[in-house]
Amino acid sequence: MSKKVSFEQSTGPVIILVRPQMAENIGMVARAMMNCTLSELRLVTPRESPLCAKAVAASSGAQEILEHSQIYENLSDALADVHFVLATTARPRDMTKPVFHPEKALSFCQKHIQNGEKVAILFGAERTGLENEELVPANGIIEIPLNPKHCSLNLSQAVLLIGYTWFRATSDRDNTHLAMGGSQPATQEAVQTFLTHLEQELDIRGYFHWPEKRERMQRNLRNIFIRANLTAAEIKTLYGIIADLQRPPRLKK
Amino acid sequence: MSKKVSFEQSTGPVIILVRPQMAENIGMVARAMMNCTLSELRLVTPRESPLCAKAVAASSGAQEILEHSQIYENLSDALADVHFVLATTARPRDMTKPVFHPEKALSFCQKHIQNGEKVAILFGAERTGLENEELVPANGIIEIPLNPKHCSLNLSQAVLLIGYTWFRATSDRDNTHLAMGGSQPATQEAVQTFLTHLEQELDIRGYFHWPEKRERMQRNLRNIFIRANLTAAEIKTLYGIIADLQRPPRLKK
Repeated sequence: MSKKVSFEQSTGPVIILVRPQMAENIGMVARAMMNCTLSELRLVTPRESPLCAKAVAASSGAQEILEHSQIYENLSDALADVHFVLATTARPRDMTKPVFHPEKALSFCQKHIQNGEKVAILFGAERTGLENEELVPANGIIEIPLNPKHCSLNLSQAVLLIGYTWFRATSDRDNTHLAMGGSQPATQEAVQTFLTHLEQELDIRGYFHWPEKRERMQRNLRNIFIRANLTAAEIKTLYGIIADLQRPPRLKK
Repeated sequence: MSKKVSFEQSTGPVIILVRPQMAENIGMVARAMMNCTLSELRLVTPRESPLCAKAVAASSGAQEILEHSQIYENLSDALADVHFVLATTARPRDMTKPVFHPEKALSFCQKHIQNGEKVAILFGAERTGLENEELVPANGIIEIPLNPKHCSLNLSQAVLLIGYTWFRATSDRDNTHLAMGGSQPATQEAVQTFLTHLEQELDIRGYFHWPEKRERMQRNLRNIFIRANLTAAEIKTLYGIIADLQRPPRLKK
């Protein structure tokens, strides 16, 4: 039933598998992606190679997606050129993030893509899902609505449902778009660099002086700015604010 | 991630697998059904038992669906008490039948079920699909829209997409929300008070020193924080940051 097709780069979201454990799942993800016209696959520290025999067999004709897949040593690198990130998760997290069902989420993705942005969707490891710190860079969470008493999905099935929702959303097009007021969205790299700068400026002033709270404080702080979907110009504004807040007052109120 | 749940007969369509070849697929079909609150599984001459170890392992907690499944010697027997039948197929057939996409098909199913009828959806064997004579009893065909260059689906994935469409159609709850991680959203007043404080702190340091730009700078600044839908706790965090950024550095970087 399957056959090799010529590789076409899709305009759809990049699929990022974080720490996938089984080669078969990587192959089945590639197959599900090709079913849904998605083509760009990124893998963060996969345990097995996407080109091993098991992965290729499971891809069932979608080998070219495996051949074009990219491997990264960490999630930040995998996200460096991405503008808008959504993360899939089954269990609720202790974190303030907007949560979308797939139709809504993919319709947002489409708007960002139409706007020229690179969009990625994160999927965690088979048993454990995404770790809390892997959710931090996400602009939002996708929750796939399923039987609340039995919502465990195989990794490739989760990708299939998201991919299918993408395919369905883009086969009936609408021309809604996100008004950007002429400005460019910031890259993940620019956001990360800004956040690191902010943390350093706070750190040298003793902001993180309880070591046991540091990680949580850092995560909460990052969530605030990541949720804002900052533009490149806004990042400049924020650098300006940080610099100016450090100056002594010079004007009377 | 999966756990055993008490068996509940669903009101959804009966899933009928015709000549399934692999026990793993039967198990994975049961899992996909349970994900989507479907419960009634019928098997026409399966090659392996739905209760063999491989099927049970693949069902990943949906064993009760396997235990309650019924085996039939032919399709007519499996359909004897059914009122409305839809068949899934990948390739076009030389046959005059209405063809529906899944949303439409499941919405028909729902109407028939509300009408007190028993509804079934047929899935063919893994490689060959349904034979032409197995399509004859069907009131209509479901065609799952996918990449025309690569539309082969694993049996359980086809059941999952149909089941998910059923679940989405019948549990029409929009789950978009902001996950708050236990914290409270900030009131408008708290946000405004914070923004005024930030602007005052910036103002006395000369941040707004071009009067003609002041209004625009203020608006841009406010947009950043308003778009973040801040929580009450985050507002406290931001006050802390502003205070701390004004302190002299006291630690080495």
